[in-house]
Amino acid sequence: MKIIIDAMGGDNGPIEVIKGTVDAVNEYGVNVILVGKEDIIGNELKKYDYPKDKVEILGASDIITNDDDPAIAIRRKKDSSMVVGCRALADGMGDGFISAGSTGALLASGIFIVKRIDGIDRAALSVVYPTKNGFSLLLDAGANVDCKPEYLYQFALMGSVYMEKVMGIKSPTIGLVNIGIEKGKGNTLSKETYDIIERSHLNFKGNIEARELPSGVVDVIVSDGFVGNVVLKLTEGMAISIFSILKEEFTKNFRTKLGAMLLRPELKNIKGRMDYREQGGAPLLGISKPIVKAHGSSDAFAIKNAINQLKKFIEKDVIKIIEENMHVLDNK
Amino acid sequence: MKIIIDAMGGDNGPIEVIKGTVDAVNEYGVNVILVGKEDIIGNELKKYDYPKDKVEILGASDIITNDDDPAIAIRRKKDSSMVVGCRALADGMGDGFISAGSTGALLASGIFIVKRIDGIDRAALSVVYPTKNGFSLLLDAGANVDCKPEYLYQFALMGSVYMEKVMGIKSPTIGLVNIGIEKGKGNTLSKETYDIIERSHLNFKGNIEARELPSGVVDVIVSDGFVGNVVLKLTEGMAISIFSILKEEFTKNFRTKLGAMLLRPELKNIKGRMDYREQGGAPLLGISKPIVKAHGSSDAFAIKNAINQLKKFIEKDVIKIIEENMHVLDNK
Repeated sequence: MKIIIDAMGGDNGPIEVIKGTVDAVNEYGVNVILVGKEDIIGNELKKYDYPKDKVEILGASDIITNDDDPAIAIRRKKDSSMVVGCRALADGMGDGFISAGSTGALLASGIFIVKRIDGIDRAALSVVYPTKNGFSLLLDAGANVDCKPEYLYQFALMGSVYMEKVMGIKSPTIGLVNIGIEKGKGNTLSKETYDIIERSHLNFKGNIEARELPSGVVDVIVSDGFVGNVVLKLTEGMAISIFSILKEEFTKNFRTKLGAMLLRPELKNIKGRMDYREQGGAPLLGISKPIVKAHGSSDAFAIKNAINQLKKFIEKDVIKIIEENMHVLDNK
Repeated sequence: MKIIIDAMGGDNGPIEVIKGTVDAVNEYGVNVILVGKEDIIGNELKKYDYPKDKVEILGASDIITNDDDPAIAIRRKKDSSMVVGCRALADGMGDGFISAGSTGALLASGIFIVKRIDGIDRAALSVVYPTKNGFSLLLDAGANVDCKPEYLYQFALMGSVYMEKVMGIKSPTIGLVNIGIEKGKGNTLSKETYDIIERSHLNFKGNIEARELPSGVVDVIVSDGFVGNVVLKLTEGMAISIFSILKEEFTKNFRTKLGAMLLRPELKNIKGRMDYREQGGAPLLGISKPIVKAHGSSDAFAIKNAINQLKKFIEKDVIKIIEENMHVLDNK
């Protein structure tokens, strides 16, 4: 197995990306191709011990940033690490691609260079959504803001296969984000989507209200990309806001500081339970080859985890299974 | 001023509703009409001291519950406390109406019995959204799941007037819930809405990402009812989930219990900072007379606060100001 890595992408690339890659090579035994400025990558690699035959460098002189317009950037910056990496994936030089760079540009590269799976209308950004006692997979998390019911059905299907194969969850439960749990609730999109998913072979649990999402009541959370993005960002925002309130209250005076000191391991543990890094990156489901988006602020640890996730994504033949299930007649 | 109150609605009606009403009569000097079963209301009222001339009873033999279909219920249960109360409001027996009963039925009663403001396309449920250091007004919180840009513009206008007049915030800032802050981001609805609000006289701060909502960066949060409802419920869900995690971690052993004991006043304070009750009820903006929805689980304190809010809603002539602003040419 060979994994192609955008060495330059993300807030902490190339230093942390390369460190995480080397850690993954050493820990998981994967072969990698690091794409980016050859001198920078070469110099960074000198810092580490690793099996030399497992790491290649593929030169790319340019970088796509978050300030670039995705659609324009992938046409104009043809020698960027992201475009070169995606082209290498499309050409079969590796089995999967990972980048911590611009989400929009990675999606555009995936769609236009690697292409979508036959029969899939839209590719979805699928993120691991931390819940009280585990995680769900949320898709679409922002790739498609205006959706049709069929797209959402395909998201449900792809999410189900991914959770089962990569995350090891047997017959994953599917929930449709809605403003009421009864069938017939919600907007036109959610009503029509309900009808389609209900008729499929998926383990559909029906509508799910946003209030229940943090408790983790379903394995796969399905919504359009607008609502999914709102859910994801509000969850982050609430966690940040509540921790900031805790900090304010717990540092008020000597008594509170003493209390907080006694609770230090638990406070750390709570932060850990709500950490986004542990579970790795976000798969772009619907693209014909495995691509994972690592969080923009990924450190080496997060990169290593994302590579491990991509490794399973490749090993478990997720895309082939999605393709096969596309042709299943969706009648119970 | 005379306020009409659905004595039977809500999880804690009639007992807590009547207690809260009496408290409001005593504290704010308002006149009230309690609508519902006369014998029950009469018996409850015997418990309290209050100026007898300020409290009337209006008989209604039936109750609309949350299990009733709103549209059907308001036609079939013509002698329900909600329908009778709304009709009394429409007939000019009082200046405003409050209910802790079914949100859907109250909206339907407002729209079909009291009628919308001339020129307003849709009535919005507007809720006080608690933020880190205060609150915003969020609308629509769930009344309209499929929206047009003009509706959202009207929500912005109505929310702005309400925040200025009732909540006393000078030139309230308006934010449009979106998945990116730049103009041109989002779905078709948000792009078109942006253009309309931008051209208006409102204090428009542009798009706002869901991550920022809990920090309280704008006074009025505008979205369609589907997204607004997701925002509201997810906020509640995250608060519940995080408190449940805190409780779990803080009751682990003697050390953590001691720490939590030292922090007890602060933990209570944190809960208070995120409490939904304090700010009262949710105004139905867009209806031609003042109606406030009190939270279904309201206790007497919440009812009293909601009555106080309705009192300001009436005193400040919010509806007249909305009507006047409807005819302002929305060009800077």
